[in-house]
Amino acid sequence: MNIRSAFNMVGTLAILLGLFMLVPMTISIYFREVGFQSFLISAAIAIGLGVLIKKGFSTSKEPTVKESFIIVTLGWITAAAVGALPFLLSGTCPTYTDAFFEAMSGFTTTGATVLGDIEALSKGLLFWRSLLHWLGGMGIIVLFIAVLPGVGVGGGRLFRAEVPGPVPEKIVPRIKETAKTLWLIYVGFTAMEIILLCLAGMSLFDSVNHAFATMATGGISTKAASVGAWRSPGIHWIITLFMFLAGVNFTLYYRAFTGRSLRGFFRDDEFKFYVFLIVAATLLLLANSLLASDSFQSLREAFRHCVFQVVSIITTTGFATVDFHAWPAFSKAILMTLVFVGGCAGSTACAIKVGRVLILIKHVYNEVFRFIYPRAVTLPKINGLAISRNVVDTVTAFFFLYMAIFVSGSLIMSGFGLDFVSSASAVAATLGNAGPALMVVGPPVAYQSIPALGKWVLSACMLLGRLELFTVLVLFIPDFWRKR
Amino acid sequence: MNIRSAFNMVGTLAILLGLFMLVPMTISIYFREVGFQSFLISAAIAIGLGVLIKKGFSTSKEPTVKESFIIVTLGWITAAAVGALPFLLSGTCPTYTDAFFEAMSGFTTTGATVLGDIEALSKGLLFWRSLLHWLGGMGIIVLFIAVLPGVGVGGGRLFRAEVPGPVPEKIVPRIKETAKTLWLIYVGFTAMEIILLCLAGMSLFDSVNHAFATMATGGISTKAASVGAWRSPGIHWIITLFMFLAGVNFTLYYRAFTGRSLRGFFRDDEFKFYVFLIVAATLLLLANSLLASDSFQSLREAFRHCVFQVVSIITTTGFATVDFHAWPAFSKAILMTLVFVGGCAGSTACAIKVGRVLILIKHVYNEVFRFIYPRAVTLPKINGLAISRNVVDTVTAFFFLYMAIFVSGSLIMSGFGLDFVSSASAVAATLGNAGPALMVVGPPVAYQSIPALGKWVLSACMLLGRLELFTVLVLFIPDFWRKR
Repeated sequence: MNIRSAFNMVGTLAILLGLFMLVPMTISIYFREVGFQSFLISAAIAIGLGVLIKKGFSTSKEPTVKESFIIVTLGWITAAAVGALPFLLSGTCPTYTDAFFEAMSGFTTTGATVLGDIEALSKGLLFWRSLLHWLGGMGIIVLFIAVLPGVGVGGGRLFRAEVPGPVPEKIVPRIKETAKTLWLIYVGFTAMEIILLCLAGMSLFDSVNHAFATMATGGISTKAASVGAWRSPGIHWIITLFMFLAGVNFTLYYRAFTGRSLRGFFRDDEFKFYVFLIVAATLLLLANSLLASDSFQSLREAFRHCVFQVVSIITTTGFATVDFHAWPAFSKAILMTLVFVGGCAGSTACAIKVGRVLILIKHVYNEVFRFIYPRAVTLPKINGLAISRNVVDTVTAFFFLYMAIFVSGSLIMSGFGLDFVSSASAVAATLGNAGPALMVVGPPVAYQSIPALGKWVLSACMLLGRLELFTVLVLFIPDFWRKR
Repeated sequence: MNIRSAFNMVGTLAILLGLFMLVPMTISIYFREVGFQSFLISAAIAIGLGVLIKKGFSTSKEPTVKESFIIVTLGWITAAAVGALPFLLSGTCPTYTDAFFEAMSGFTTTGATVLGDIEALSKGLLFWRSLLHWLGGMGIIVLFIAVLPGVGVGGGRLFRAEVPGPVPEKIVPRIKETAKTLWLIYVGFTAMEIILLCLAGMSLFDSVNHAFATMATGGISTKAASVGAWRSPGIHWIITLFMFLAGVNFTLYYRAFTGRSLRGFFRDDEFKFYVFLIVAATLLLLANSLLASDSFQSLREAFRHCVFQVVSIITTTGFATVDFHAWPAFSKAILMTLVFVGGCAGSTACAIKVGRVLILIKHVYNEVFRFIYPRAVTLPKINGLAISRNVVDTVTAFFFLYMAIFVSGSLIMSGFGLDFVSSASAVAATLGNAGPALMVVGPPVAYQSIPALGKWVLSACMLLGRLELFTVLVLFIPDFWRKR
């Protein structure tokens, strides 16, 4: 194994992040905030460190499969470590633990926060939080593949390590072009949302921040009341639409974009199941709110809030228009279930993913069938094609692993003295990168009250969830470090 | 499909249960209780009904594979329906819903109860509850195969439908002999426990009841304080030992019994993992109780209560020596996790089973390995042999199905207005047939406060859990009722 190439990439990453810090610095200067120095110092540290690392570990080799796992895992940890600097240096976070948690929560599009008074933050820092979301949403490594020169076959390996979802089809052999197109679609949607939000009456600054957090399915807002700070139904509907779009497999946009027709959407089983889940959950919440509570003044208002919350949670965004902690038990249980489901594979949403759930359901039906006819040889199908054995195996392993990490994480958190519900929901929300969903089952507990070690455990959950477990976990099995 | 044979078996079952009712009747008469008439009337109804059904659906055909699923599912529902009569006719349960819940909880060795004042029950009814446990523990169908004349190849099908755990090896081709031997081992252990409990100072009546509930891993006690009503450490240790024994795969006893050596235990991966889980959980609970609470006066006392509770929960028995609701959060979280694990396959314990968890862990490790070396062809191994593809597929499907039913059940229960924790723990405790474990995560809520429809949902969970999902669920897929 050539560990040099891993460190070399990490150096490049630090430099690029340093350059990105100049954007919130400019915003801080524009709004005449004193905090702009913290961005300048952070940028200097990041760039300086990056240059030093690159000098120390210069290499021209393409990364191997194994190295790509190290690069991506190490890359994401470095990104959070460097992204934490402005939070620490501005004095917003009292400890590096808090700053790292905040940055990791940003990059992994979790949206959990340890900051108390959101409205008191400088515009520069508010924007930095949103920018972290946006960079992490489509994937920082994917971005590098798109913009860095000289990425060859190793780029494909990195791509697979960062986007390991059950994508049955290799979308394009030329990985650089794919990465570029994906980012182009992402930028396009973001721009559209910014324009629409501005038209609906949101300020440009808030529009940019919310568009970044929406398309990344992150969930951080510039207001403590989240999207609920705006009363305009138009704004709620625009954000609902773009959360929905961000939760769709980007391969479908890619195909529609590169000439094939829109019919691809309606032929895609995962997309149809995603729409079905949203419709079904919305109807159940609506029925529950009409029968069991009187929080809403009209059916129209109830419908808007229900569909917003369902889309916000299934896409693991975590925005809220109302305090859904006051909703009836059944509605909250539905939302808690959706935190585990997540959006479509190949979207910016996280958690288990609709596609995996669909494969699991078909796998179960197939096994129940085989229980009656043991000699039948059948394979579950998706989009009319039999799902390969390997995919079924990977998905079933992923599901058990996801639940095992959820249980282990909850056990560890309860070891810090948190009660059962808080432990389980904090781990579910961070592992599924759904962040603010913590308030689904318990009172709106703030993450700041969790002990430092607990914050590191939750940060690890975020990283595991965002990189879909395997990429990180392979580094922990002895076979990985053995020569073959 | 010949539905006649199914009804015929159900008739036989009703008659046999009617005959079994004469035992608690005799006990009631011996203790000069007025309630003995309710057993007499119940027995008359059960036997009369059974004879009528058998006359109406006489057949001499052996059941097919499909019919065996109907027989077993229908048989268990009938058993609970008939077993409920004494609870209803004695006036102990005000409604048939309550009586059915109580009987189903008994047969499925769940141990959840809707009865308020346990100590006020007649000895006849207390014994009836324990007898239901004991008959259901080893399996009523297995008992029939053992005692009824003329059971041929169809017996094997029934056996498989009632005991569908991942038993890799067909323990014996002559199914009648197997069933007899299994029951003999079961009776032997029960007798040993009765003698030991009597020697330790428990009354004969209480000894018999607790031995029945222990060996069936049921958990119903003759006292409201459960085993905690006895302060003798000896009694606690005897019950711990026999709960542990009941949670072991009976195939291992069968082999030790039929001549092969005891070394089988130490070569069995599932047994070793079962012991490991108990030791690990006990140590964690012990450490937690020493560091975070001062409930125990000595290390010795703490050790006894911790190991009792761990074995009681992992075997899905549900006995308690102390009110573990007062234990620290971490200890309760460990116990809640064990409710899902359950005992070994082929034991009287329920839930997911240690063997399945072990297969899932090995499957995950194998997949993580394949993530690094995609071309490697490897299969996870148990007891030195590769686990067949079919077994892995069935186990992964079982796990997802178990979690899906757990989530759906919790959603339905929360629809009845129960809070999140009560819903989830009631479903976890009934689906895992662990009953009194409800108090693990919440306050000791009694099942009697749950609405009637909720009691039927929980009864369905108990049946699904006891028959390990597939046997019941196959009846609900359209392919089952189609001719091929």
